[in-house]
Amino acid sequence: MTELDNLRVVLVATRNPLNIGAAARAMSNFGVRRLRVVNPYEVAFREARSAVGAAALLAKAEQYESVAEAVKDCRLVVGTTAAGRRELQHRLQPLNAGARTIQRQLKTGPVALLFGSEKVGLSNHELSHCHWLMRIPTQEDHGSMNLGQAVAVCLYELVRGQRTASAKTAPEKKAKPSATSGDVERLTQLLFEVLGASGYVKPRTAVATQEKLRRLVRRMELNANDTELCLGMLRQMAWKLGVNKTASE
Amino acid sequence: MTELDNLRVVLVATRNPLNIGAAARAMSNFGVRRLRVVNPYEVAFREARSAVGAAALLAKAEQYESVAEAVKDCRLVVGTTAAGRRELQHRLQPLNAGARTIQRQLKTGPVALLFGSEKVGLSNHELSHCHWLMRIPTQEDHGSMNLGQAVAVCLYELVRGQRTASAKTAPEKKAKPSATSGDVERLTQLLFEVLGASGYVKPRTAVATQEKLRRLVRRMELNANDTELCLGMLRQMAWKLGVNKTASE
Repeated sequence: MTELDNLRVVLVATRNPLNIGAAARAMSNFGVRRLRVVNPYEVAFREARSAVGAAALLAKAEQYESVAEAVKDCRLVVGTTAAGRRELQHRLQPLNAGARTIQRQLKTGPVALLFGSEKVGLSNHELSHCHWLMRIPTQEDHGSMNLGQAVAVCLYELVRGQRTASAKTAPEKKAKPSATSGDVERLTQLLFEVLGASGYVKPRTAVATQEKLRRLVRRMELNANDTELCLGMLRQMAWKLGVNKTASE
Repeated sequence: MTELDNLRVVLVATRNPLNIGAAARAMSNFGVRRLRVVNPYEVAFREARSAVGAAALLAKAEQYESVAEAVKDCRLVVGTTAAGRRELQHRLQPLNAGARTIQRQLKTGPVALLFGSEKVGLSNHELSHCHWLMRIPTQEDHGSMNLGQAVAVCLYELVRGQRTASAKTAPEKKAKPSATSGDVERLTQLLFEVLGASGYVKPRTAVATQEKLRRLVRRMELNANDTELCLGMLRQMAWKLGVNKTASE
């Protein structure tokens, strides 16, 4: 049982079964399990439910006849909207900030997150059940989002914020150990010798060239494995170019 | 012209026209305009382009035959992946942190963000063109995201962070411009040829070696100057080793 189990994703008057399926998939991706549908087109809901690979959560989705019924047990009801709509009646929070408020509320009880129909979004009546609205920061002139994508973005933001809190203890993938300076310098020397044998190093500027190579190799910030890999390549080139064996050891 | 104009969304081997359309729609929503497709199913691409309401950016999408061609002008190439895949070869950044890195790079030049095919994601060969991978924080056991939703979430995070990042207005220390992928790939090819002439490359493992080199060179994150410097060295070695002149151009 996590706090996300207190979140109810509520799809209102959804028309396209693919969108119901897409919403369910995004929920699975981000670990949200409670789907509620309000007056979907019956056919759409049936099709979505019977689709191959439909998430288990789709089979368990609860169907309601009104928004009022669907949000009855929730302590906070938030509507979603994209750019472009003029909502004069409701307080509007950007997704970012809104998600933080929802997270706090999820610790204490159920929260409903409403998504309107593809064509018209949430009606004024449906909106009237919301405490406030959360706005996804889309472009003013291309504001309207695909429903499944809107669900994915909102849930990502909710999960992202949640993880941020626990991220400090999460063990990061261990970075490869850096090369020792000794190995980096061996690499520099060998590169210098190979370049010498290739005719790249001019006697008059040999010292400057060597320093340039030293800086270059260090800028690469090679890890221990990669240094070993490069040394192997250079040894092979040195052998082929007939670099004096003892000099490259 | 905004920094987002430097971002190229690259869809690799996409099969479903609805997904190409969905990716384009998410791009419109978040103000990203440059779409590139690599080897899409022809039918899918044609259908997506001719769909009613297809975004103008879809009409302008550029089609390529290989990832190498599609990212040639980019200075940073980032692959996307969801949970569950074990990428041992690449550095992995969470979406959150990765987006910050991409934003910094967008100030200086083109960045490619790659999305693999619906079934299998990005192949090892395709991945070998990436500097690092960005991971969307999905559930371990339901990791695989719908393509259109993955694009939406990644672009949202890039746009979200952009506002946050510019809010602080902290002037970044100006970094040297990175090398283009085209130059980095030239470097990879030339190194491969020089190693071939040195006897380092075995016929049986030549393909694997080439991919290993490709990843190695990208891990070095060379800037444009250093890439030029390395190309000069390799050209000299190639000449000395008698590498076929035309092959190394």
